[in-house]
Amino acid sequence: MARTQGSHSDITGPRIRTAALKLFAQYGFAAVSMRQIAKEVGVQAGALYNYVPDKQSLLFGLMQSHMEELLDARAERAVPADALGQLQEFVGFHIRFHLERPEEVFIAYMELRNLSAENFARIEALRRAYEDQLEAILRAGVAEGVFGVPDTKIATLAVIAMLNGVNTWYRREGRLSLDAVETIYWDMVRKAVAA
Amino acid sequence: MARTQGSHSDITGPRIRTAALKLFAQYGFAAVSMRQIAKEVGVQAGALYNYVPDKQSLLFGLMQSHMEELLDARAERAVPADALGQLQEFVGFHIRFHLERPEEVFIAYMELRNLSAENFARIEALRRAYEDQLEAILRAGVAEGVFGVPDTKIATLAVIAMLNGVNTWYRREGRLSLDAVETIYWDMVRKAVAA
Repeated sequence: MARTQGSHSDITGPRIRTAALKLFAQYGFAAVSMRQIAKEVGVQAGALYNYVPDKQSLLFGLMQSHMEELLDARAERAVPADALGQLQEFVGFHIRFHLERPEEVFIAYMELRNLSAENFARIEALRRAYEDQLEAILRAGVAEGVFGVPDTKIATLAVIAMLNGVNTWYRREGRLSLDAVETIYWDMVRKAVAA
Repeated sequence: MARTQGSHSDITGPRIRTAALKLFAQYGFAAVSMRQIAKEVGVQAGALYNYVPDKQSLLFGLMQSHMEELLDARAERAVPADALGQLQEFVGFHIRFHLERPEEVFIAYMELRNLSAENFARIEALRRAYEDQLEAILRAGVAEGVFGVPDTKIATLAVIAMLNGVNTWYRREGRLSLDAVETIYWDMVRKAVAA
């Protein structure tokens, strides 16, 4: 019988990824066994290998999906014509996208050390593709004369680090709305790169 | 015979902390056993418990020492009279202090989740004491009229996140000297909080 939508393969694959994400974020990649992941999903350890060849593939798959979703989400956004508008759009997008995915963000930073050399290079290439979009905005703003940035590469990394920081402290039940956070960070980023 | 300087206790304690730091940074706290730490130090697993009660105490000790060294190092610095000078001094100090301790910085962020509730509260208090120093500088600058910061708490967290980012990319053999990095970050921080 041919596999149809809603078969075990369709349902179990995502459940394995969800379980792995949760356990990796909680205990760290090295401390989690395939057996634990199977138990979390509710399948036999042996059955897991029908869906994923090994733990490394699972980690890489999670990080790759995260970066590809980030790039796809960016690609869908309307692009303002001027560099200042583009930068403002980037700041709001980055904060909101990452706040929605705290476990993925934590793993993307923390588990780089556990990727194989080949997988690390592939994740780095995706990360660089994202950074290059911000750097292009900064270069355009420098060319327009609205930004004054001595080193667009470093400014890119500095802005992203500042925005990533929101994930370490923001709580939805806290004193600041997401709009307020976005406004405050936009004020600082705008001034940080101003001419 | 009384213990003298250079006794096993004096030598072994620091060696255990160094081994734990290295192993926690490499594999993560949850994946490292007391047995592995003993093996790295070259003592029997049982002997380890003469020096440290458990793995939680070891982790807490590493994070506490890191934060106390940070606060002690700050306390030793001469303080410029004006807020702008104080902020510049803070930026240079923060970058250099943290670049010298990549493993401690990595653990301080990554392993917060593995602290007991009581230990977490103690580390948070130390971290807040450090953040409060930067926030006091920003408040002083706002009072002097040289800084324009709508929310000094958020600006504090944003500046620290930006500066922490240096640890993720800076390499001594890279294209930029430490002085150049400090200059670029100071330029961005100064503008980000400018009135």
